[in-house]
Amino acid sequence: MPATLDERAIEAMMLDYAACLDESRLEDWPEFFVDDCCYKVVSRENVELGLPAPIIYHYSKRMLQDRVKALREALTFEFVYTRHLISNIRIRPEVQRKISAKSNYIVVQTTEEGVSRIYSVGSYLDDIIMTPDGPKFGSRTVIVDTFGIHNLMALPI
Amino acid sequence: MPATLDERAIEAMMLDYAACLDESRLEDWPEFFVDDCCYKVVSRENVELGLPAPIIYHYSKRMLQDRVKALREALTFEFVYTRHLISNIRIRPEVQRKISAKSNYIVVQTTEEGVSRIYSVGSYLDDIIMTPDGPKFGSRTVIVDTFGIHNLMALPI
Amino acid sequence: MPATLDERAIEAMMLDYAACLDESRLEDWPEFFVDDCCYKVVSRENVELGLPAPIIYHYSKRMLQDRVKALREALTFEFVYTRHLISNIRIRPEVQRKISAKSNYIVVQTTEEGVSRIYSVGSYLDDIIMTPDGPKFGSRTVIVDTFGIHNLMALPI
Repeated sequence: MPATLDERAIEAMMLDYAACLDESRLEDWPEFFVDDCCYKVVSRENVELGLPAPIIYHYSKRMLQDRVKALREALTFEFVYTRHLISNIRIRPEVQRKISAKSNYIVVQTTEEGVSRIYSVGSYLDDIIMTPDGPKFGSRTVIVDTFGIHNLMALPI
Repeated sequence: MPATLDERAIEAMMLDYAACLDESRLEDWPEFFVDDCCYKVVSRENVELGLPAPIIYHYSKRMLQDRVKALREALTFEFVYTRHLISNIRIRPEVQRKISAKSNYIVVQTTEEGVSRIYSVGSYLDDIIMTPDGPKFGSRTVIVDTFGIHNLMALPI
Repeated sequence: MPATLDERAIEAMMLDYAACLDESRLEDWPEFFVDDCCYKVVSRENVELGLPAPIIYHYSKRMLQDRVKALREALTFEFVYTRHLISNIRIRPEVQRKISAKSNYIVVQTTEEGVSRIYSVGSYLDDIIMTPDGPKFGSRTVIVDTFGIHNLMALPI
């Protein structure tokens, strides 16, 4: 039950992931995933109804890199500062070299004028793989409670 | 000072409690308490003024089970998704087999349309008892900062 | 990688700091700092643009004590309950007796009528010094995302 080396490394990686996005280092974002990864954003409504349609779905690291390129060069969207608050981290013991984890998040966005509002609340559902470069996401599913999205969901969560 | 086995188990239990409520597994909720327990929701105003009136007060596990039955079968209230974010967990060392703990929470509710808003912010004040089945709440007091409650406080926090 | 004694003590101190402010024990607040300390509140906008102007700037414990005296005896401001939720705590290994740390926060304020709203979101950037009385802040910089401040920022964050 005391935190193992792996658990501490996984928790640190999750917080680095949040910092990477909040510091707008988008190019580093795909590096938190293995090559053959899955990154999905799904509404809590669809999850609970067993419906498959995702809001965002990338099924390789190359697709994540492509997404970053689109965000940097193609898409236009309102400038915002973001802040991820991660809590309720629960890491399951390893089974056959697979570690699964859950956590909750609030993402607060702040406009250029310094006005903050809750942008998204939800949970992460992760499969984590221990690689020689440390823990990485085999699969990360973002289940958004806040699925009433005003415009485009541009930035990853 | 490094986390003991008990501290880790207590923290895990607190997060399971939050997940139990967020996943709407209400029937499991009383199982986080000992038989002879106390669950209370009180306003921060009353706590600071030393006034005793609670918003919710149950003083046995049977009363918690009754509350669940009422929620499932009798009460009608708006459907919402909830998300508990637990932070600032502080566990005091055991004194005469009693462990006390404090933590802070935000509960975000999301409507059926996917619109999220802060429902309640406050703190938990707990007495924890180590049982053969793991740590359980001897007493859990929810001190709600957000005591300006719009309607009924239906779901437990 | 497992939490060291120092890391656990630093984390506990950060949470005590939050509790000190939330419980309105302002007189205890300067005691979280060394004599020759620095406490600064700066907007995220200025930090990212490399602009130096702070919102609040105190560069000794005496200045913090003076601030508390002003808050207690001179300034008038609306009564609010506050609640600090601290997350994403990242503590760097010690280098030449200096430990640096980062964390994120949400401060929720609640009016006398029990209505809560997000007051400030942002991050802490800390230099921590291990003293015989435990860890203390050599320097604490509050980087506020929420720099569109309605009135006076009276209470420290």
